[in-house]
Amino acid sequence: MNNSNCFEVLHKDKHTSARLGKLKTYHGDITTPVFMPVGTQASVKTLSPQDLKDNDVEIILGNTYHLYLRPGHGIIKELGGLHRFIGWDRPILTDSGGFQVFSHSDLRKINEDGVEFRSYIDGSKHFMTPELSIEIQESLGADIIMIFDEPVPYPSTYEYTLKSTELTTKWAGRCKERHNKEGQLLFGIVQGGIYEDLRKNSIEDIVNIGFDGYAIGGLSVGEEKEQMYKMTDYTAPLLPSDKPRYLMGVGTPDDIIKCVSMGVDMFDCVMPTRNGRNAMLFTTKGVLNIDNKKWEFDFSSIDNGLDCEVSNYYSKAYLRHLMKAKEFLGLTIASIHNLAFYLWLMKEARIHIEQGDFANWKTGMIEILRTKL
Amino acid sequence: MNNSNCFEVLHKDKHTSARLGKLKTYHGDITTPVFMPVGTQASVKTLSPQDLKDNDVEIILGNTYHLYLRPGHGIIKELGGLHRFIGWDRPILTDSGGFQVFSHSDLRKINEDGVEFRSYIDGSKHFMTPELSIEIQESLGADIIMIFDEPVPYPSTYEYTLKSTELTTKWAGRCKERHNKEGQLLFGIVQGGIYEDLRKNSIEDIVNIGFDGYAIGGLSVGEEKEQMYKMTDYTAPLLPSDKPRYLMGVGTPDDIIKCVSMGVDMFDCVMPTRNGRNAMLFTTKGVLNIDNKKWEFDFSSIDNGLDCEVSNYYSKAYLRHLMKAKEFLGLTIASIHNLAFYLWLMKEARIHIEQGDFANWKTGMIEILRTKL
Repeated sequence: MNNSNCFEVLHKDKHTSARLGKLKTYHGDITTPVFMPVGTQASVKTLSPQDLKDNDVEIILGNTYHLYLRPGHGIIKELGGLHRFIGWDRPILTDSGGFQVFSHSDLRKINEDGVEFRSYIDGSKHFMTPELSIEIQESLGADIIMIFDEPVPYPSTYEYTLKSTELTTKWAGRCKERHNKEGQLLFGIVQGGIYEDLRKNSIEDIVNIGFDGYAIGGLSVGEEKEQMYKMTDYTAPLLPSDKPRYLMGVGTPDDIIKCVSMGVDMFDCVMPTRNGRNAMLFTTKGVLNIDNKKWEFDFSSIDNGLDCEVSNYYSKAYLRHLMKAKEFLGLTIASIHNLAFYLWLMKEARIHIEQGDFANWKTGMIEILRTKL
Repeated sequence: MNNSNCFEVLHKDKHTSARLGKLKTYHGDITTPVFMPVGTQASVKTLSPQDLKDNDVEIILGNTYHLYLRPGHGIIKELGGLHRFIGWDRPILTDSGGFQVFSHSDLRKINEDGVEFRSYIDGSKHFMTPELSIEIQESLGADIIMIFDEPVPYPSTYEYTLKSTELTTKWAGRCKERHNKEGQLLFGIVQGGIYEDLRKNSIEDIVNIGFDGYAIGGLSVGEEKEQMYKMTDYTAPLLPSDKPRYLMGVGTPDDIIKCVSMGVDMFDCVMPTRNGRNAMLFTTKGVLNIDNKKWEFDFSSIDNGLDCEVSNYYSKAYLRHLMKAKEFLGLTIASIHNLAFYLWLMKEARIHIEQGDFANWKTGMIEILRTKL
């Protein structure tokens, strides 16, 4: 596989910046725009690999930080890599650990070389560097890996953002230098906080180093929604149009369709499974809280608008009972359903990009997503 | 369906009292000896109905006490009964609530009419009678229901046991009197504690009332293993040989095969799923604790001796990681696996009863069950 042309734009929307694409990876092709469920600790919470396949999941995400601390990348490498470890033969993307090292660790010291942090499991001391992040990600053997960056926290001053973004650029260069696994795609990450000129500089620097794809980092970290949209709208079109664009950690269904219209191709978020575990369901008719008493006698299926066996098979009344009774099966059903909704949403987006009526579809869909059932 | 001949003994073992049978119910035939997974709150913990079917579960158990308190039998009746509520079209047995009313409730008052108890959910006051128990069980619509009894606690004096067993007999008569649902089998329960003469009296009284099957109650409540075996061995042969015999709440795999050899046909226990959630696995090669460090690098399947996709698909190392990381998927995998083991054990028992080498098989199997991996 020649990494230089791993991505192909198949269709461009006339009225928005949305695009339909195909991303070729070692474990198969991914159609974009794509949503990637998060398998933090080598498992998408409550779902089996078969559940993921049943819902046409094409790629999942794994967290380098978590897998490095437990079970350790040495074990996973020894056992043949993350795909074999999980029992998942479709593409995987691993993040670099940057986000978690900075957000989960109370005790951390950054210097130009890397970051010292303490394990949240046993308090042990670790030193993460760009080189170690790449080494771990090579051991895990994902199809797509990410550079080690510092996601600029929000709020941050212009000065801090400038310094931090320059550090990310240096680390990006070291990651590219260190990366040496054939067939494994390496994506750069653009930082720059909420400052357009710093975003622009970051894009130039990162694109200049040259990667197989580009992620927009440092958003969805506490800033206002409007700022997130504004920065995405500013950043996405400046990224190379012949490479996949990945907006990290985003987001709600309406965040995703809005950012698709800005030209973003890839998304990941824990929201479908986390909200599912908290009884909040996305459906093709609106959003609902399944804990609500109004579903007590409602024997209609969770969502018959989806081609998902779980959403069709179980009733709202039964799922409500399981959630109230704190039965594990309730968490699984709600998680599978929400994930099926996200996958359906992306498929619909792709269909409407191809049909040329994406903008209209988006307007209608956002209305549905605002409907409280 | 004529309830009077719902059970047929197909084969009797020559060397033990084990027997192969067929129990006909409204939702289909059950082959005995059978193990019934416990779906306390309308869900066998962590498993979907499809998971149960994939592992050839023929009948599940539901708990009247729990379903009465939440979601309430009125809701389940309104929604078409427990089968439709769960989405399970094979047989279901419900217990009468007797065991839970007596064991879960701190605040309870017994009189001849029934038992006053407080809900563990909201502290509300309830009064359970034999008639109400039957009414609830008719609303739930299980294929097999149980009389409302007082399981004699252990230890109990001879006098208490005598009085309590006589009360159970009276309640049994009232249950039979009240029961009025065609096609639904009603089983009696024999009490008598650890006193052979009281067991004998109870059997005579309960059989005299006449039921579709007979359960041995009041065992596995804290007495010594040897006492449980002794009482089962004493009670089982005194029960009518043309009716199914059900040993309630038993037990470990070796309890079950030992009691099969004493002529028991039906078993239920939370052990496979509960032990699974606690990392203790039964396998065709012995028992193991999957938390143990020795499995850290063991990429062999959980158990390739079972015809269970889950046991074959996932490795010990991956399951260990999931359990250590407290991932829900680990609980599900371990529960499905243990249940598959129980179902396999019963199938093997039936095969060896039919082949005539049950006693030898039992000896070998008990050795395996004593093996710590």
